[in-house]
Amino acid sequence: MSEFDLIRRYFTRATPGAELGVGDDAALLRVAPGMEMAVSSDMLLAGTHFFADADPFMLGHKSLAVNLSDLAAMGARPRWALLSLALPQPDEAWLQQFSAGFFSLADQHGVELVGGDTTRGPLSLCVTIMGEVPQGAALRRSGAQAGDDIWVSGTLGDAALALAHLQGKVQLTEGEFAACAQRLHRPEPRVALGLVLRGIASSVIDVSDGLLADLGHILECSGVGAELDFAALPVSPVLGGHKSQPLGRHCVLAGGDDYELCFTAPVSQRGAVSAISQQLGLPLTRIGSIVSGTSDILGRSCSVRTEDGSIMNIMESGYDHFA
Amino acid sequence: MSEFDLIRRYFTRATPGAELGVGDDAALLRVAPGMEMAVSSDMLLAGTHFFADADPFMLGHKSLAVNLSDLAAMGARPRWALLSLALPQPDEAWLQQFSAGFFSLADQHGVELVGGDTTRGPLSLCVTIMGEVPQGAALRRSGAQAGDDIWVSGTLGDAALALAHLQGKVQLTEGEFAACAQRLHRPEPRVALGLVLRGIASSVIDVSDGLLADLGHILECSGVGAELDFAALPVSPVLGGHKSQPLGRHCVLAGGDDYELCFTAPVSQRGAVSAISQQLGLPLTRIGSIVSGTSDILGRSCSVRTEDGSIMNIMESGYDHFA
Repeated sequence: MSEFDLIRRYFTRATPGAELGVGDDAALLRVAPGMEMAVSSDMLLAGTHFFADADPFMLGHKSLAVNLSDLAAMGARPRWALLSLALPQPDEAWLQQFSAGFFSLADQHGVELVGGDTTRGPLSLCVTIMGEVPQGAALRRSGAQAGDDIWVSGTLGDAALALAHLQGKVQLTEGEFAACAQRLHRPEPRVALGLVLRGIASSVIDVSDGLLADLGHILECSGVGAELDFAALPVSPVLGGHKSQPLGRHCVLAGGDDYELCFTAPVSQRGAVSAISQQLGLPLTRIGSIVSGTSDILGRSCSVRTEDGSIMNIMESGYDHFA
Repeated sequence: MSEFDLIRRYFTRATPGAELGVGDDAALLRVAPGMEMAVSSDMLLAGTHFFADADPFMLGHKSLAVNLSDLAAMGARPRWALLSLALPQPDEAWLQQFSAGFFSLADQHGVELVGGDTTRGPLSLCVTIMGEVPQGAALRRSGAQAGDDIWVSGTLGDAALALAHLQGKVQLTEGEFAACAQRLHRPEPRVALGLVLRGIASSVIDVSDGLLADLGHILECSGVGAELDFAALPVSPVLGGHKSQPLGRHCVLAGGDDYELCFTAPVSQRGAVSAISQQLGLPLTRIGSIVSGTSDILGRSCSVRTEDGSIMNIMESGYDHFA
């Protein structure tokens, strides 16, 4: 089966939301009047981001999910995606599963696959996601103000705990692992949350590299500092049993792969945020405050207060692919 | 140096043509009123598309060039790009050269790098290119009509001949190789040609997988056949010396990596096409005609006539990554 046959069979579907989809030199897209396009790319490599024998359905899901998470963090409505895929050989069963996982999530969010590339090579993926947001309404990293509350959606650290189990760093029970592995392999991007945070949040980022690292980007872009309350950080029951230990603390603060949204909002928006939490059935937890300048004498922008009121000594700052 | 420092140093530049460039969860772009966006992605892998020790400046050039070629084939004006880059380790000298090659071509075409991804892994690249084209004016593959002329820009086969030399399949002199290698390593996308073909060409494709394969896409999308005149196929002086031999014939018809435009146009546009050739200082050569239906009893859509009037037996149909 040739490259073109593969594309046709597994990746070519009707794209009524595009002027032109898969099958020409480029796709043609019309952005609605008054909207701007939000666009982002993520690359996922076997061995770096996932195991080469990863379940293809889940990989299809995750490759789109991590990109949708970026659009969620902008408050953009997902519309279109491009998928570039390198495979060691054209494995039809794998492609069937992968595309099923990809399109299952795409359909949930109204995303149309309009183009991309397939080639032979070490298993790797690059997804480009495009969405629409009203002009000027996108949620940036740069709007946090001193005094703002800091919020996070859902719970933190489960994906990292599942990975730690796979790496033999912790021993979870079968049931515990299953619960955490779901977060690692099938993250649910907070697209609906991003949309309703427009006009409420002062800054938003998605937590992909770990809370401290990603909040750090907000702080840097906004020129502010932060104080976090470690006890307030929301965790699952499984992670709750590990939260006070070094590994658990690492998972919560720096684990990565959470794909929750971390956002700031003025204190006056607390009621609105609570209403959103109710409306979406999604926990939104206040975890700290934005402060002016840096938060300690070492020039660190973020401090974490423990339950006894002391400041935690933070050595971990999240996942950096080259650090 | 961390991932974020690398991005900042080598890939973050002013992007006045974007609402928001590198540095947030997504870039924000405004498509001008009356325009639609043309968008395309290409993945380039060491070992498949280039040698791992390829000159990084030329690789930076080529990674953008192959994408610009796709926009050229749509008649779109390039505006923005995303670059995802996996590197075995953060090699500053390499990055400096690569980004210099990338931005050198980007600047020529007014392209702004607005986002992407960097990660550790086997050397690989994925570029997403975005451009603008007036609504409804894009040049598609599907408009070829029986009786139309078939044209190609520049010359064909030099890149494939250079590759054949590197693979030991042919022995070129130093000067010959240098001339051909330029085409392999530093293709010049025909962006200006694509823009002026709007309203003149009935269909366009860029020749990346070889003339027969790429023309084949036009024929399939348009539901027509083609007759090519082998003697008319434009080649460089170097390839001219090999054109009658099997290897040379293969390079011209099926070599790939040409990044010329192959297009069809009504006979009534011959004068306009000649004027464009003059205006751009770029040879545009009439190489055959579109015919209705398939062109031979075997159901093949394309036949190639040799100088003595016989039909060439075509076994090669271009580069397919999985064939």
